[in-house]
Amino acid sequence: MIKRYTYGSPFQTEAVIEQIQAIKEKPSYFKVNKEEDSYTLVYKMDKNDGLFGLGENIRGINKRGYIYKSNCSDDPSHDEGKSSLYGAHNFLIVKGSHTFGIFIDMPSSVTFDCGYTQKDQLVITVSSIDFDLYIIEEESFNETIKRFRKLIGRSYIPPKWAFGYQQSRWGYRNEEDVQKVVDGYRNNHIPLDAVYMDIDFMERFKNFTVDSAAFKDFKQVVSDLKDKGIRLVPIVDAGVKIEEGYDVYEEGVAHNYFCKDEQGEDFVAAVWPGKVHFPDFLNKEAREWFGKKYKVLLDQGIEGFWNDMNEPAIFYTPEGLQEAFQKLDHIRQCDNIGIYEFFGIKDIMNGISNSASDYERFYHQVGDQRIRHDKVHNLFGYNMTRAAGEAFDVLEPNKRILLFSRASYIGMHRYGGIWTGDNTSWWSHLLMNIKMMPSLNMCGILYTGADIGGFGGNSTEDLVLRWLQFGCFTPLMRNHSALGTREQEAYQFQDIGSFRNIIGIRYGMIPYLYSEYMKAALRDEMYFKTLMMAYPEDAFAENVEDQLMVGESIMIAPVYEQNARGRYVYLPEDMLMVKLRSLTDREYKIMDKGHHYVDIALEEMVFFIKPNHVVPLSKGAEYVDGLDEMDLELCGYVKDKATYELYQDDGFSKYYDSPNNWSTLQVIKEDNQIQSISSKDALKISLNIY
Amino acid sequence: MIKRYTYGSPFQTEAVIEQIQAIKEKPSYFKVNKEEDSYTLVYKMDKNDGLFGLGENIRGINKRGYIYKSNCSDDPSHDEGKSSLYGAHNFLIVKGSHTFGIFIDMPSSVTFDCGYTQKDQLVITVSSIDFDLYIIEEESFNETIKRFRKLIGRSYIPPKWAFGYQQSRWGYRNEEDVQKVVDGYRNNHIPLDAVYMDIDFMERFKNFTVDSAAFKDFKQVVSDLKDKGIRLVPIVDAGVKIEEGYDVYEEGVAHNYFCKDEQGEDFVAAVWPGKVHFPDFLNKEAREWFGKKYKVLLDQGIEGFWNDMNEPAIFYTPEGLQEAFQKLDHIRQCDNIGIYEFFGIKDIMNGISNSASDYERFYHQVGDQRIRHDKVHNLFGYNMTRAAGEAFDVLEPNKRILLFSRASYIGMHRYGGIWTGDNTSWWSHLLMNIKMMPSLNMCGILYTGADIGGFGGNSTEDLVLRWLQFGCFTPLMRNHSALGTREQEAYQFQDIGSFRNIIGIRYGMIPYLYSEYMKAALRDEMYFKTLMMAYPEDAFAENVEDQLMVGESIMIAPVYEQNARGRYVYLPEDMLMVKLRSLTDREYKIMDKGHHYVDIALEEMVFFIKPNHVVPLSKGAEYVDGLDEMDLELCGYVKDKATYELYQDDGFSKYYDSPNNWSTLQVIKEDNQIQSISSKDALKISLNIY
Repeated sequence: MIKRYTYGSPFQTEAVIEQIQAIKEKPSYFKVNKEEDSYTLVYKMDKNDGLFGLGENIRGINKRGYIYKSNCSDDPSHDEGKSSLYGAHNFLIVKGSHTFGIFIDMPSSVTFDCGYTQKDQLVITVSSIDFDLYIIEEESFNETIKRFRKLIGRSYIPPKWAFGYQQSRWGYRNEEDVQKVVDGYRNNHIPLDAVYMDIDFMERFKNFTVDSAAFKDFKQVVSDLKDKGIRLVPIVDAGVKIEEGYDVYEEGVAHNYFCKDEQGEDFVAAVWPGKVHFPDFLNKEAREWFGKKYKVLLDQGIEGFWNDMNEPAIFYTPEGLQEAFQKLDHIRQCDNIGIYEFFGIKDIMNGISNSASDYERFYHQVGDQRIRHDKVHNLFGYNMTRAAGEAFDVLEPNKRILLFSRASYIGMHRYGGIWTGDNTSWWSHLLMNIKMMPSLNMCGILYTGADIGGFGGNSTEDLVLRWLQFGCFTPLMRNHSALGTREQEAYQFQDIGSFRNIIGIRYGMIPYLYSEYMKAALRDEMYFKTLMMAYPEDAFAENVEDQLMVGESIMIAPVYEQNARGRYVYLPEDMLMVKLRSLTDREYKIMDKGHHYVDIALEEMVFFIKPNHVVPLSKGAEYVDGLDEMDLELCGYVKDKATYELYQDDGFSKYYDSPNNWSTLQVIKEDNQIQSISSKDALKISLNIY
Repeated sequence: MIKRYTYGSPFQTEAVIEQIQAIKEKPSYFKVNKEEDSYTLVYKMDKNDGLFGLGENIRGINKRGYIYKSNCSDDPSHDEGKSSLYGAHNFLIVKGSHTFGIFIDMPSSVTFDCGYTQKDQLVITVSSIDFDLYIIEEESFNETIKRFRKLIGRSYIPPKWAFGYQQSRWGYRNEEDVQKVVDGYRNNHIPLDAVYMDIDFMERFKNFTVDSAAFKDFKQVVSDLKDKGIRLVPIVDAGVKIEEGYDVYEEGVAHNYFCKDEQGEDFVAAVWPGKVHFPDFLNKEAREWFGKKYKVLLDQGIEGFWNDMNEPAIFYTPEGLQEAFQKLDHIRQCDNIGIYEFFGIKDIMNGISNSASDYERFYHQVGDQRIRHDKVHNLFGYNMTRAAGEAFDVLEPNKRILLFSRASYIGMHRYGGIWTGDNTSWWSHLLMNIKMMPSLNMCGILYTGADIGGFGGNSTEDLVLRWLQFGCFTPLMRNHSALGTREQEAYQFQDIGSFRNIIGIRYGMIPYLYSEYMKAALRDEMYFKTLMMAYPEDAFAENVEDQLMVGESIMIAPVYEQNARGRYVYLPEDMLMVKLRSLTDREYKIMDKGHHYVDIALEEMVFFIKPNHVVPLSKGAEYVDGLDEMDLELCGYVKDKATYELYQDDGFSKYYDSPNNWSTLQVIKEDNQIQSISSKDALKISLNIY
C-alpha cells in the first residue's frame, strides 16, 4: 500500500507515473517537525534495523551509519567522506522491526542522516516546505521495491548491441584515434561493440557538431564502423557554447530557451566550450527543441548518446570568478600574507567550481512560474535526458537509441540509464561499483555500470582485468579513462589473451544477461539483487555486501583486492560453481551451502548457478550482432527440473511486449537421463548440466 | 649474509650501524643500468613472487602491482593513488623463486616500480649516482628481516606509560580544554594515560613556548595531571618562527644553525607560525643545539613529545608565492579567461605547498659540504628526531622520554617511533593501519600506530569503536582528530560503556603487550607479524592481509567494515578464540585449523591464542602506573605445556638488559591437572586455561 502525504505545494517532478491521492492524516513511523524553510522526519531505529536504497551513493549496501545528501554533484573524488554523487535518488527502505519504503519527491537537497549523528535515529531533512512524501508498506521487503518500481514506471530499455563491450577514453580526438582503438580490438580478436567519443570530437566543444578536420566524412566513418559491428557513441554536454553563427546558440537565444539570470538575461557559465548558456530543460518547449537537435547526429547514423556535465557542472561563472579575484586581491593587499590568508586564497580558488552561490544565480521558466535553479537543482540532468528520450520517441518511434546520463533523479530511469561518473582507478572503486548496483536497481535504474578500470588515476593490468570480470555482469560494460592517465584499453597490457578471454565470456552470456535485463525491465524486477533479497529467510544473507545475484540463476562473488588469489564466498544453498578461464575453458564443482574460500586466479572468473537453474549461453562473437542466438548451450545445475524463460527479440525495435519474444526451455533429469524441451523448435540446444 | 655495493660517493645517512665492507663485484639478481643522474635496478619476477616491506605506504602488505616512491611528503590524502607518504623506508624483500632483501641507502627519492609498468618486473630507480645498495640473503624470509634489523640497530623503547591509551585533538587550546578531556575520561572511568597538545598551546606557534594566557601555571598543570596518571604531550614543529626577541630564532640566526638559501641567507618558508627558518638538522652543531631546547619543556615536567611538520612541510615560500601570483596575473591579463587558463589558475594555487621547486631553494651545511635540500630531503625528519633523542640521552641519561615523529627514514627508528600521519575517518584507513604495521616493523619502526578514529573528516561511533578494537594492539594507541571535524573522544558517543570496556581491555593486556614489545625491540624481532612470517610452511598464509600476529601468542582478525557483524578468519592451526565484551566479560572457544566465519558484534572484540601459549593479563586500571602487575592472570590454550617469558621493569629507566626483568611462567597440563610454575615468587598467578 502506498500513502502519499503532500506538504505545501510541491513542484511536479513527474518522478512517479501513478496518481496517488494525497491523504491528510499524519504519516506513520515518523516524527515530523516543520522548521522555517524545511522539514525533518525522525524515525527511531532498532539496533538491527537496516537501511537500503538511495541509489547512486558511496559506502555499503546497508546505508546505516553514515549521512547522505541528495544533491547532484560533479565531484570526481568518490571517497568515503562524500555524501553526494551525481544522482539524487530519494528512495529508502527501512528493514527491521518495521519494514517500509519512503520516497521524498522534492527537487532540491534532501539529507538522510542514517544513524550518523545518533546511531539509533534516521533523520531525513527536506530542504523545502513543499514536497511529496510517499510511504510504501507491502508484505515483504521485495514487494516494497516492486511496488515502488511500479509507481515510477518501466525502466529504460537500450538496444541489444549496448550489452556488448564498449571502449571509451577522454582523448580520442579524431578518426585515426578511433581507428587505432578499433584495430586494437579487431586485430587482437577482443570483442567490441562501441567506441565512445568524449568532448574532443566536436568543433570547439559545440554540441551536435563534429570537427570536420578530425572527421573528414563523419557519416562514412560511422557507416564503415557499423559494417564491422562497432557503433560510435558521441557525448552531449549540458552547456551550449556562446558563439555567433552557431545555430543551437542562436535559436536558443531567439526563442528564450536558455536559463536566465536575475536580470532576465541569458545566464552565462563556463564549462568545456568556455562560456555557455544552459538550455532550460524544465521548460517543455526548450526540452522539445533541444531533443530534436540530436537528429543531426542520428542522421549521420549515430544510434547512441551519453549526456554529460548535466548536474549542471559549472567550472566558473564570470560573476563568481570576479568575486574570487576581488577577494584574492583584497588578501594580497595585506602587508604580510599569513597562514590563514594563504589558506583563504586556496579556499577561494578551490571553491569557484560548482559553487552553491552560482546555482542561486539562474532561473527556470516552468509555465508562468520563474524558479530559481537551486530549488529544482536535482531535476536538471533528468530533464536533459528526458529531452533526448522524448525526442527519440518522435524521431525514431520504433527504434531503441542508447542513452545514458551522468546526473539523474528518479523518473529519468524511464528515458535512459546512467554511468556512475568519474570514478578512479582504485580497487575500492571496483568494490563500490559492486555495492552500488542493487541500490540503483531499487530506484529503477537498470542500464548502468561504472567506468571499468577507473576513470581518473593510473590503472594497472590486474585492476582492469578484475574489474572486467565483474563488468561482465553489468548491463553497461564500458572501459573509460581520463586524459593524461595510463592507457587501459584491453589490448594495452601484457596478457592480452586473458582480456580476450574475459570479454569473450561476456558475449557468451548475452542470451542470459539480455533475458534477465528484459525480465527486470518489463516486470519491475531487480536485475542485481542482494543475497538478502534473494534469500529473505537466510539470516546471514543481510551481512553479505560483496556478492550479488544476477538475474534468476546466477550468484557472483567478484575478486576486488590486489594480489588476491581467491576470496571467501557464502552460499545460501548448494550451488554449481562455474570457473572460467575463457568461454570454453571451464571447470565445474557442486558446492555445499555455507562458507567457502574459493581460489580464483587473476585470469579466472567464477559464478555460481542455483540448483534447478540453467544459464543459456551462446558460442560468442566479436560483436553482439554477430551472435548466433539460435544455437544455445544450457549450462546449469539440475537436480530434477529447471525451467528457463528465454527472451529474444530483434534487439532494436520496441515490440517488447510481444509473446513471440519468449520461449520456455526445460531441462528434466530423471533416472540419470537428462533431456531438454524447448517451446521454440528453431532453437538448437546443447546441454551442459550438472 | 649482507653484501654492500657502493656507487659513487654516497652521503652518509647513518641508517646502518654496522660497517660492512663494500665489494666491487656486480650485484646478483639485478640488471643495473646507469643513466645520466640515476640508476635503475631491474629484477625479473616470477609469477608468484611477492614483494614485502617499504614501511609506511598505502595498499597491501604484498606491494606487488603498484609503484611507490620514497619521498617524505606532507600529503593528507592517503588514497590508493598515492605513491609517497611521510616516511622513506627503502627496505624490500623479494620472496619467491629467490628470496632476498634489498636496502637502498640514499637520502633522496627512490622509486620502486613493483610490477606496475610491467607486471613481471621490479624496477628500482635511484635518483642519484651516489648510493649504497645492500643485498641480504639468509636462510629464510624471517632471518632476512632479522639480519636487516641487526644492521640498522636496536629500535627505540618508550616509557611504559606510553602503552596506555592516549587522547589528542588539534584544537585543545588551553588548560580548560585539557581539563575537559581529562574529566571526560576520568568521570566516565575510561582509562587514559596522556593528553596531547597540538599547535595551539604554544605562543604564536613558537616551538618550546607555552602560551601563558592559555596555561597560567603550566608546570603546575603538568604536575596536577601527573597526579592523576595523565601525561601532557606537546608537539614540536620543524620550523622556527621568525620573531625578534624569540630566543630560539635569535640563537639560530647568531650561530648559523638554520638552512640557507642560495645566497647564503637564512632560508624563509611559511608554516603554522607564518614565516620560519628551518634548523639545519643535518648539521651536528645545529642538531645538538635544537635538541637541548627540549629541556625547556622537560624542566616543566613534560616526558613526551611528537615531532611534526618535518618532511619538512612548506605551505609556501615567499619566492614560490610571488612566482604563483606572477603567473596568475599573467593569466588574468588575458582578455578572455578560457577553460584552460582557469584550470591553470587552479593548478598554480594548488601547486604552491610542498613544491619540489621550494625543496631546491635551500641548503644544508654538513662538515664543509653545502648540500641542496632535495638531495638529502628524506633525512630531515629523521635528524630532527635524532636531535631530540640524542639530547635526551644527555639531559635525561637514564630516563625514557616518549618521542615520535611524522617524517622518517630508516635509522630514525633508533631515536623514536612514528605515527602514520594525517589519515582520514574512513574504514579503508582502519584497514590500511592494519596492513601497514608489519611493513613498518620490518624497517625497525616498532613504536607506532595510526590516528584512531581518523584525523581528517568526520568519524562515526562505530568506526571509532572498531578502530579502538584494533588499536588495543598497536604500541601507540592514540585517538587524534583535526580542527573542525566531529569530536571523537571516547566519551562523545552514545554507548560510552563499550568505549570504557574496549579501552579497559587494552590495560588488561599491557603485561603481554609490553613483554612482546620489549622482546621485539631487544631481540630485533617483529612485534606485528604477518601470518606468512609466523607460518612459513602454510601456503595459504601469504594470502592473508587482514589478520596479524601480535607477539608470540596472539593472532588478531579485526573487523574493519561498517555494519559488519563478524568476519572471515583463517586459522593456520587450531586456536583458542577469546571473545571479549570487556576485560572480564569473555567467552572462549577452541576452533579448528581452517576457514571460519566469526560473529563479532560492534561492542565485541576477539583475539586468538595459539596452542600451548598463554597471555598474561592484569586486572586493569585507569592508567598504566596504576596497574598491579604482580597480580596476573594467565589466560591461554594449553594442550600439555606452555612457557611464557614475561618482561617487567620499572617502565622508565634504561636497564633493559638486566636479567632481573625476566621471569619464566610455565603452565603444565597433565592428566587434566593444570599447574603453573613461576620463576618469580612475588608474582601472584591465577589461571584461566583451556
